[in-house]
Amino acid sequence: RLGCCYYPEHWPEAMWPQDAARMVAAGLSRVRIGEFAWSRIEPEPGRFDWGWLDRAIAVLGQAGLGVILGTPTATPPKWLVDRMPGMIALDEQGRPRRFGSRRHYCFSHAGYRAEAVRITRAVAERYGRHPAVIAWQTDNEYGCHDSVVSFSEAARAAFRRWLAARYGTVDALNRAWGNVFWSMEYRSFDEVELPNLTVTEANPAHWLAFRRFSSDQVVAFNRAQVEVLRSLSPGRDVMHNFMGFFTQFDHHDVAADIDVAGWDSYPLGFLDSFRFSAADRLAYARQGHPDIAAFHHDLYRGCHPDGRWWVIEQQPGPVNWSAHNPAPLPGMVRLWTLEAMAHGAELVSYFRWRQFPQAQEQNHAGLLRPDSSDAPGLGEARQAAADIAQIGPTGAPPRTVALVFAYDADWITTIQPQGRGFSALWAAFDCYTALRRLGLDVDIIPPGRSLDGYALCVLPCLPHIPDALAQQLARFTGQVVIGPRSGSRTAEFAIPEGLAPGVLRDVLPMRVTHVESLPPGLAHRGDGWAMTRWIDHAEGAMTPELVAEDGTVAVWRHGKYRYLATWPELALAAVLMRRAAIDAGLAVHDLPEGLRLHRAGSRTFAFNYANRPVEVPQSVEGNPVIGQRNLGPAEVCVFEASSI
Amino acid sequence: RLGCCYYPEHWPEAMWPQDAARMVAAGLSRVRIGEFAWSRIEPEPGRFDWGWLDRAIAVLGQAGLGVILGTPTATPPKWLVDRMPGMIALDEQGRPRRFGSRRHYCFSHAGYRAEAVRITRAVAERYGRHPAVIAWQTDNEYGCHDSVVSFSEAARAAFRRWLAARYGTVDALNRAWGNVFWSMEYRSFDEVELPNLTVTEANPAHWLAFRRFSSDQVVAFNRAQVEVLRSLSPGRDVMHNFMGFFTQFDHHDVAADIDVAGWDSYPLGFLDSFRFSAADRLAYARQGHPDIAAFHHDLYRGCHPDGRWWVIEQQPGPVNWSAHNPAPLPGMVRLWTLEAMAHGAELVSYFRWRQFPQAQEQNHAGLLRPDSSDAPGLGEARQAAADIAQIGPTGAPPRTVALVFAYDADWITTIQPQGRGFSALWAAFDCYTALRRLGLDVDIIPPGRSLDGYALCVLPCLPHIPDALAQQLARFTGQVVIGPRSGSRTAEFAIPEGLAPGVLRDVLPMRVTHVESLPPGLAHRGDGWAMTRWIDHAEGAMTPELVAEDGTVAVWRHGKYRYLATWPELALAAVLMRRAAIDAGLAVHDLPEGLRLHRAGSRTFAFNYANRPVEVPQSVEGNPVIGQRNLGPAEVCVFEASSI
Amino acid sequence: RLGCCYYPEHWPEAMWPQDAARMVAAGLSRVRIGEFAWSRIEPEPGRFDWGWLDRAIAVLGQAGLGVILGTPTATPPKWLVDRMPGMIALDEQGRPRRFGSRRHYCFSHAGYRAEAVRITRAVAERYGRHPAVIAWQTDNEYGCHDSVVSFSEAARAAFRRWLAARYGTVDALNRAWGNVFWSMEYRSFDEVELPNLTVTEANPAHWLAFRRFSSDQVVAFNRAQVEVLRSLSPGRDVMHNFMGFFTQFDHHDVAADIDVAGWDSYPLGFLDSFRFSAADRLAYARQGHPDIAAFHHDLYRGCHPDGRWWVIEQQPGPVNWSAHNPAPLPGMVRLWTLEAMAHGAELVSYFRWRQFPQAQEQNHAGLLRPDSSDAPGLGEARQAAADIAQIGPTGAPPRTVALVFAYDADWITTIQPQGRGFSALWAAFDCYTALRRLGLDVDIIPPGRSLDGYALCVLPCLPHIPDALAQQLARFTGQVVIGPRSGSRTAEFAIPEGLAPGVLRDVLPMRVTHVESLPPGLAHRGDGWAMTRWIDHAEGAMTPELVAEDGTVAVWRHGKYRYLATWPELALAAVLMRRAAIDAGLAVHDLPEGLRLHRAGSRTFAFNYANRPVEVPQSVEGNPVIGQRNLGPAEVCVFEASSI
Ligand SMILES: [Zn+2]
Ligand SMILES: [Zn+2]
Ligand SMILES: [Zn+2]
Repeated sequence: RLGCCYYPEHWPEAMWPQDAARMVAAGLSRVRIGEFAWSRIEPEPGRFDWGWLDRAIAVLGQAGLGVILGTPTATPPKWLVDRMPGMIALDEQGRPRRFGSRRHYCFSHAGYRAEAVRITRAVAERYGRHPAVIAWQTDNEYGCHDSVVSFSEAARAAFRRWLAARYGTVDALNRAWGNVFWSMEYRSFDEVELPNLTVTEANPAHWLAFRRFSSDQVVAFNRAQVEVLRSLSPGRDVMHNFMGFFTQFDHHDVAADIDVAGWDSYPLGFLDSFRFSAADRLAYARQGHPDIAAFHHDLYRGCHPDGRWWVIEQQPGPVNWSAHNPAPLPGMVRLWTLEAMAHGAELVSYFRWRQFPQAQEQNHAGLLRPDSSDAPGLGEARQAAADIAQIGPTGAPPRTVALVFAYDADWITTIQPQGRGFSALWAAFDCYTALRRLGLDVDIIPPGRSLDGYALCVLPCLPHIPDALAQQLARFTGQVVIGPRSGSRTAEFAIPEGLAPGVLRDVLPMRVTHVESLPPGLAHRGDGWAMTRWIDHAEGAMTPELVAEDGTVAVWRHGKYRYLATWPELALAAVLMRRAAIDAGLAVHDLPEGLRLHRAGSRTFAFNYANRPVEVPQSVEGNPVIGQRNLGPAEVCVFEASSI
Repeated sequence: RLGCCYYPEHWPEAMWPQDAARMVAAGLSRVRIGEFAWSRIEPEPGRFDWGWLDRAIAVLGQAGLGVILGTPTATPPKWLVDRMPGMIALDEQGRPRRFGSRRHYCFSHAGYRAEAVRITRAVAERYGRHPAVIAWQTDNEYGCHDSVVSFSEAARAAFRRWLAARYGTVDALNRAWGNVFWSMEYRSFDEVELPNLTVTEANPAHWLAFRRFSSDQVVAFNRAQVEVLRSLSPGRDVMHNFMGFFTQFDHHDVAADIDVAGWDSYPLGFLDSFRFSAADRLAYARQGHPDIAAFHHDLYRGCHPDGRWWVIEQQPGPVNWSAHNPAPLPGMVRLWTLEAMAHGAELVSYFRWRQFPQAQEQNHAGLLRPDSSDAPGLGEARQAAADIAQIGPTGAPPRTVALVFAYDADWITTIQPQGRGFSALWAAFDCYTALRRLGLDVDIIPPGRSLDGYALCVLPCLPHIPDALAQQLARFTGQVVIGPRSGSRTAEFAIPEGLAPGVLRDVLPMRVTHVESLPPGLAHRGDGWAMTRWIDHAEGAMTPELVAEDGTVAVWRHGKYRYLATWPELALAAVLMRRAAIDAGLAVHDLPEGLRLHRAGSRTFAFNYANRPVEVPQSVEGNPVIGQRNLGPAEVCVFEASSI
Repeated sequence: RLGCCYYPEHWPEAMWPQDAARMVAAGLSRVRIGEFAWSRIEPEPGRFDWGWLDRAIAVLGQAGLGVILGTPTATPPKWLVDRMPGMIALDEQGRPRRFGSRRHYCFSHAGYRAEAVRITRAVAERYGRHPAVIAWQTDNEYGCHDSVVSFSEAARAAFRRWLAARYGTVDALNRAWGNVFWSMEYRSFDEVELPNLTVTEANPAHWLAFRRFSSDQVVAFNRAQVEVLRSLSPGRDVMHNFMGFFTQFDHHDVAADIDVAGWDSYPLGFLDSFRFSAADRLAYARQGHPDIAAFHHDLYRGCHPDGRWWVIEQQPGPVNWSAHNPAPLPGMVRLWTLEAMAHGAELVSYFRWRQFPQAQEQNHAGLLRPDSSDAPGLGEARQAAADIAQIGPTGAPPRTVALVFAYDADWITTIQPQGRGFSALWAAFDCYTALRRLGLDVDIIPPGRSLDGYALCVLPCLPHIPDALAQQLARFTGQVVIGPRSGSRTAEFAIPEGLAPGVLRDVLPMRVTHVESLPPGLAHRGDGWAMTRWIDHAEGAMTPELVAEDGTVAVWRHGKYRYLATWPELALAAVLMRRAAIDAGLAVHDLPEGLRLHRAGSRTFAFNYANRPVEVPQSVEGNPVIGQRNLGPAEVCVFEASSI
């Protein structure tokens, strides 16, 4: 299904019916509304203005659109902030993060949480059983603009309660964190401060607890809304729209409370804003790096236990929020849409219907321009709708490779990079890219999810390994690749007894004696690859499989288990993943730069992210039902295979 | 005329007569004093010490020097700050900007404004009719050190009053800013905050209003002093010394209240401090980029309605305040002086007479060294005085090219660069450079100034076009070049109905469908030029004139109107400006790198900014009356033409 | 002697005897303990728990280890901070620097100073005469984490008192600082603020006074502890562990109050954290730049009047605190140890005995791994112990070259770099490198130390020259090299009367007419060398000795005095120092890249810092008693000379 995000409050009421009709004519059947409309729903404390929203939902519903209604808690109005100034978050420097944009609240503030429940209840009471309302979105992009962590009084008090619940006694906390170091011992939970503004870095265990706490506050905030919605709006899906490359809270935990994991897909904005190389920024400036969208599709499909996920905001043209904001190549909006469908999205919803000529996002494209003329994205959406109709229902993605990712892995590595910029998220991304370049399909799953049916399991970087995962790996019958730093920390951010890889020592009979982080340029070169950024030096019963010219071991092997003792530099990861995939019995492909594949049911989708033509290699079997083997930039080919 | 800046309070009284005599002997006839002397004028609240200043003015006047007296309001003494702590500005992070240097006041603080009027009145009452006092300077370099905007309580209260006056009702404000977006609606003006410290960026309309307000506060602050000076010192010029490349307040508005626009010319400091390329920084390290001084000369001549302007502070040697502070090439001080004269300056005044061996500017050169020996600048000033005597009165600069610049253009583009670093100021500068490289003379004027007599009018980047300007352009008979983003915003920072170029659509029959900003390295190449940073994609009735190899249109044309749909990259701007100038019937020259021309009356001045010899091309007619066609580094040639 | 740093409080008591035995077996005879243990010594206000420390000292002493006991004042416990919140320092932005790591105190807070004396007295009363306790360490790394300067209320009040004591009257202060400039005059000491948060830079004289004051506060804080220790622990050495490349307080002043100057040697951490070139960072990534350790050895030997100094913390493997943390090449720990011994260290103590698996330094290597297995450093320490036993007592380092360094030189140049990054510390380091590359031995001494016996005296950059030093230089019979900016400022940060070099004009008959700082890339090239960053333009009776191709003078000479008028760029400094050394009658060597020498008594030590083999040139005489002339990476050769 396709849909869009719409703000009836931005436009004269007279335009609504025509907008709804044009949406339907373009092949859209879902519309998300309301998530920033608090000041229109409740213009003054306790005075609700439902009329406009009643009429908007009526117009949209009568046109045949299913409405996804957002709770407006990401944008509390000024009158509420003025009544409750303590609801404002403080940043790490102690500065207030004030009213004037959005997300101006601290997740730990009980008063604001009650207000959020109150407005959610009011909206849900009115529309919970409305036939046009088919789903809910809680809040909007939790954590966007670095808004998960807060250093307010409210956060401090809540953190102390959270610590008391987790550790029971302050002595237990002191032992868990190793507070004997530097006389950091506390005599009571009321002595514990937030970890910011310390003279030098705070205890990493302190930070990890605070990151866990902060994530839990988001989970609790969301759950409070979900409970209201479940009780007042039976049968509707509850969804939240997660934001890409965002790890400040545990998406798996929030996903456990909702029906559908949504995410907001802005491939060009992400390319420009995140740590891509200068070469990739140029090569993919108008397409986005070919793994950005797919990585998140696979992450959010795996994020929710039963695999239901939506792209709730799809970039339809240039955006406004990155340092540079080029326009997508013609065809990219269609390509992104079809790739989401190939990965199993139930819905792709474009953000937004019409470009709004005022305020912060006035340069953010919509499907329509501000003057209501068609923007390029609208035609591509229409084309995508036709393609989807032609293809029919896509089957489930295959279970071939499981890539295990955990949010606390990113917390641990960013709290303690040890080498500048080391991040488990990006280690996962680079492993994912290496797998995708081989033409493999990947599921990104949390620790603890079943590994049944997978031929290959990859742990790019999981410093803290739950015991259950170690046991799963020991029983797993496929091939296993385990990446750097995995098993190197306990749940409380300590080096495990017996050293890394800790609980993984049953499957990795070795001991990491010491680690090194390498400055830029320092590398140990092998046959076409290099060890960069990081080395886990190990000793034990494993066999060196890939060794640099100077003898440094890059990959150790022990039966079906491989250990990557360095950063997954792409050339090295390619060699490693190819070996593991072949040992796992998987077919691998030599794909030209920028070409990516994905299977769904009996079909293979091919996507050309390159800015020049490429050819799908003959190793990819099947007959094109859409497109052809020679793909121009931004083109798509769908192969129907006789056998999968 | 030449002059200098002098601080009698820094030196023993016995040195004053000799200093005055040496000034006169060097050919100086003006001296600016007093602008930082509050603590000596009023050492304690209400106790004035006039004696030293009486004697200083007497000594200078008796030597034949005309005194320009500064109001000392840029440096309120500590006792005043301690009495009135709320006068201190707060920076964007909420930190106080405290006593200990200068400009430690908030323009919105009513108490301080009254104090500024009080000290101005005291000084003007004593010296307003003194025969030696021929002019006044208000304050010093308004806005220097980022001091226009303040986020204090005083600023917040004044901003609310300003908003009420501008918008009348808060509903009008909400509509004007589009505050329905993200529930940013206010119920009263008292709910409006300053736009700093928001979670993500504040509404650009909010910022623009705040920038306008902040500029207006400077205007009002200045006007309060001007009124006092006018009433107490009849017949004297009132001047303010503006600072180069400084756009935080609207210089045109302040200039409207004074008689003479002064500016402070530090070509080497500006080269090192602003966004010049590494190549230019090296090539011009000891000369300054060849358009820095001229750009400001032309700006400030146009800034004041009747074209009266002074260089009130001229760099005489190395300065102290940039990251690197090389010495000017021998000859540059003379060159800068003559170039100012060629551009119509009534006065060039060197900063400062003698290098002060203490405090913040101890490494700032003067015409004298701290030990009173001659610094190199003194000899060059003496030479310049002789040159000026030889040349005699320069005629008025010709009216050939009008370049329209508006301060709110820079506010809009820096509030919303959309592509990192986009700034209307620098678009104007690059257009100016392209024109100067063709040997053209340029007037930089505000929107609304008459275009009569110009052959070519250039609007480098004016997002907000006043209706009157659009009408002027429609009637204008010369050639017109309009640059990117022009007409793309209303006065309230909205995309205009019917899209850009808004009110320019009568002269530019097109519609900008969408814009792109390009990351570094992404370019659309044409024949020797490139489209970089920005693209306005347009459709309509205009004709492509310059088109990149891939078909992207760089320049559109419609009769005498050209639209540059991208950044004025120098090679592209050169092609464009050459075409427009030729169509306008102007003679253009092929100047070697670093050579610049300027006409004044019947004379053509040539200035060699290159660090190697260049030759003035034969297309420049006339006979050298000073210098010769072959110019060494820092040399000047003045041609007397039979016909202009 | 060798030793290590040990934290019995981190480990079960049962491990202590075995740890002590292993230390002794490895050849260690000293152990530093206790410096972060306040929360274990005094777990609650006034309740002391001596038992564990009694037993720890007993175990260590009985094993034959001499205990160096630290006062725990670098880590006051949380209960103390909560009782005395004003003890927290404020940073330059006004933010509190809170509890949660270490060094969370303001040196000016009288309450905390009393607490520091109280806990010092308590520890000293208990262990001052304990036979195992052979020395004391005061606090830990004063100033680490930028903790010397504080902008708290306590600091402000103390600064005002310090100013009153220094200047007597506020008029004297105003004159000394030149406060007439910008109306910065004060009417009383109570009007003086700290120099932070000013609108633009504060008066450099204000900053210099504040830096002097801040340094004096450290001296006073330390002295208060020293007095307690002297009275309660007679006959024991009092030592402080200084930190490398750290200039925020005057180490010479602190050293004057203690018996032994200790320093903490982390060559790899320093390489990565300080201003080394990208090339050096790569070439020496696992060795450290070859002059880092030696520079500090020579500095701290000269720091304490009688030359007693220790390496109290020696890096034994990778550390945790730099941006990148590679492992030392095998052999480097031994090399570092032997180089310290060659420079006259009485003790090299490794930090730390065993890697602690929790808290901030969990990735900091020890001699043992967290699981108590040997880390590589332990074997190297054992080898070093054997080497030292074989070598026997090293004689005193020779007196050949004196390099004069003063802490206020670095304060002056960092307060007023004039060219970005100019620092007297790094000028000294680059001169030192040039001397070391010639195979020379250097003593780094403070101004005022006797120059008797030196053949060459180098002043790399001393803006403020005490009169006594000027007189010493006039009488000195050896060669003298004086570097840029020397003599350019008075004690109160003014340009001296008669201009630079001020009081040096007797030995340097010249006058610096003006200075230039050069942007990167701007250079005046000579024969294989270049003038970069800085030029002192001079005139007078000196003779140009090294002149750039364009005539700019790089080195002036007047008899035995040479003046380097630019930055000591390495190629230029090499030419200059070679000439001066030869004129001084010193033998110089052509050493391959990375090779360094040091003499001690009758022996010459050669150290290979290169990451490839090098050969000690035949000009180095003597017979190898350890190692050989061909040195692999990290290898050492000791030559026994027939004659020195
Ligand atoms: Zn969004
Ligand atoms: Zn100035
Ligand atoms: Zn340390």
